[in-house]
Amino acid sequence: MPGVYDDLDLSPNELELARLHQQASGGYVDLSSSNPTEHGLIFPPQVLQQAAEGFWASRRYAPDPHGSATARAAVAAYYAGRTPALHLELDDLFITASTSEAYALLFALLADPGDNLLAPGLCYPLFEYLAALRDLELRPYQLCEEDGWRIDEASLRDAVDQRTRAILLISPHNPTGSVIQQPVAVLRELGLPLICDEVFAAFTYAQPHVPPLAALHPELPVFTLNGISKFFALPDLKLGWIALNPPARHFLPRLELLNDTFLGANSLTQYLAPALFAQGMDFVNAMVARVRANVDLFIATIRQAPQITLRPPDGGYYLFPAVHGWEDEDALVLHLLAHGVLVHPGYFYGEAAGTHLLISALTEPTQFADGLTRLMQALTRS
Amino acid sequence: MPGVYDDLDLSPNELELARLHQQASGGYVDLSSSNPTEHGLIFPPQVLQQAAEGFWASRRYAPDPHGSATARAAVAAYYAGRTPALHLELDDLFITASTSEAYALLFALLADPGDNLLAPGLCYPLFEYLAALRDLELRPYQLCEEDGWRIDEASLRDAVDQRTRAILLISPHNPTGSVIQQPVAVLRELGLPLICDEVFAAFTYAQPHVPPLAALHPELPVFTLNGISKFFALPDLKLGWIALNPPARHFLPRLELLNDTFLGANSLTQYLAPALFAQGMDFVNAMVARVRANVDLFIATIRQAPQITLRPPDGGYYLFPAVHGWEDEDALVLHLLAHGVLVHPGYFYGEAAGTHLLISALTEPTQFADGLTRLMQALTRS
Ligand SMILES: Cc1ncc(COP(=O)(O)O)c(C=O)c1O
Ligand SMILES: Cc1ncc(COP(=O)(O)O)c(C=O)c1O
Repeated sequence: MPGVYDDLDLSPNELELARLHQQASGGYVDLSSSNPTEHGLIFPPQVLQQAAEGFWASRRYAPDPHGSATARAAVAAYYAGRTPALHLELDDLFITASTSEAYALLFALLADPGDNLLAPGLCYPLFEYLAALRDLELRPYQLCEEDGWRIDEASLRDAVDQRTRAILLISPHNPTGSVIQQPVAVLRELGLPLICDEVFAAFTYAQPHVPPLAALHPELPVFTLNGISKFFALPDLKLGWIALNPPARHFLPRLELLNDTFLGANSLTQYLAPALFAQGMDFVNAMVARVRANVDLFIATIRQAPQITLRPPDGGYYLFPAVHGWEDEDALVLHLLAHGVLVHPGYFYGEAAGTHLLISALTEPTQFADGLTRLMQALTRS
Repeated sequence: MPGVYDDLDLSPNELELARLHQQASGGYVDLSSSNPTEHGLIFPPQVLQQAAEGFWASRRYAPDPHGSATARAAVAAYYAGRTPALHLELDDLFITASTSEAYALLFALLADPGDNLLAPGLCYPLFEYLAALRDLELRPYQLCEEDGWRIDEASLRDAVDQRTRAILLISPHNPTGSVIQQPVAVLRELGLPLICDEVFAAFTYAQPHVPPLAALHPELPVFTLNGISKFFALPDLKLGWIALNPPARHFLPRLELLNDTFLGANSLTQYLAPALFAQGMDFVNAMVARVRANVDLFIATIRQAPQITLRPPDGGYYLFPAVHGWEDEDALVLHLLAHGVLVHPGYFYGEAAGTHLLISALTEPTQFADGLTRLMQALTRS
């Protein structure tokens, strides 16, 4: 059958069946969900409602291939306020419907069917789907857990060939939480465009700011991606963006055509953008504080348990601990589920040596503590 | 350079320069714009505002690969109310961010790079851009002006080959306004999936209803596309949909994955959907009445002028008259612009024998009458 995704297995897997079974019998504490509104993390509705008030009567259709100037000004101000700051012209910004849409536009902009892109072998399982839409190959590079999940530069160099068109970098990385702190020698050497996913930039752990890759690599074309989905816990209001650094301006005319083809961002959310940045930071800080407290509790709890180790995240809202003494992640997750706690097996996120679990540190704190207790009981008893 | 749109000429063309010149000198009446809000066609803001009131406090993130059940129920009710009615299960509907996004999803669903799709040789110049994203060839079939712009079945049959994956049908057609009234023998014969664009279905001229192609061809997989962009003059609020008929359900699992990759439709507009259908029809009827009055005026005005002829549209909001005695559409449009009226040359919409102009019947009536007077003066004097 022609068409994308034709090789995917759509039948429910063993884990899903076990989850349904456990749900119907003893129940479980869910440590796998990162849906913010399920955990009571709801962007203040009165801020949105008040900010929207002026929209309705003033609504006029004024399509712009970059997105509204209002939304772009709000995003540019955000970058100007970060340390290190990034200075952006309004025309260096493109507003999209989401980071996912931003990726799809960039994949079409930079590569042709049969070309390839490099991405971490371990990452959120979205990029395979997006690459398939353009018939691109996603080639993995490795991250070294021992070295704080840093990029394995040799593996990145080995993955490049004549048809490599761009390199995806995720900082803070999902799910390991590692942040790229320094320029990466191999990137400069290769000279390829960088697609930098910063959707977790607001969620930092040890340091207050994530260094933008556009600042670390000003010599390369860098496309920085973010959106309101994680930043403001507003995935449903659909707003993302792409920021170009000066070397990436070369691609600007075609990116205008691409974004103009869909004009994906809706006018209301663009209108709300300034209010999100101006009035949403208390909410963002509260989310970050929750994540930090959950991460702290996790680290303190596992300290005495040699069965489980964690390389502390620099950012993001996931925990990706290694579990020792288990070879099979499915078996481990089923064992935990039988003890009343649901987590994701590491392989949902790709390849990593050893046995890992994915846990959401966005979880409501009481639930998180409860789930963590069950997890430790299940691991230490086994 | 790899990447999409690499062969496009991005320099401003002669017409655009002439337009700017005329704007700075005598000015012109614009008969080319179909931006509804430029013509005072503004969906009642108080309906939107009131309908949105309940949204903010109840907002929860509940992603569904089909889109919200609320929005789907509203769309299903619309089809159930049409004559001939279409009965849809809620799972036969997919809510998208726009009709353009719906097309992009279907192109990926049905075809692989190097495959081809058939589309009218004359149509809105969006499909080339969308096809290029998936590296598909768009093969033209012809419409016969003498025969009310009906599909030339022989040309359609000739265009098909082994790699043809679907046929695009636009009814009411943009820009000719022709509506497919009867089953098309060659479509049944070929057995290929149909992508049916009905974005102008609300705008009918002679008959009150457009027969859905899913009803004319129940034996074929039919994907019906529409959205709020034209229907309710709300292109900026970003909502489109795809309706599957029973034979198209075969594609449902992969379409779920595709729509889940972007979850393109925002939650607020989905929440508003029932109010659009329930409270927006007076506004829609007012738009349709304006279009009919402009079309009537146009037909009455050109009756005495052999230089210009029109095959009356069945629907849509464009006029696509043929102009006789002119070979070069650019020269004609420049001539008209010098007489103070801006229209689009026919070739913006592809290939048609003869010389054509595109005129928007959405234009504010006084402006439309003024522009039409100038047009007739320019044509009869030349
Ligand atoms: C690293 C990463 N990038 C991008 C996305 C998608 O973001 P959006 O909702 O803006 O499409 C996700 C979603 O989980 C993600 O984890
Ligand atoms: C025939 C046709 N289909 C689809 C579209 C795009 O609609 P949307 O704004 O929902 O993407 C247009 C826009 O003009 C059109 O003319």
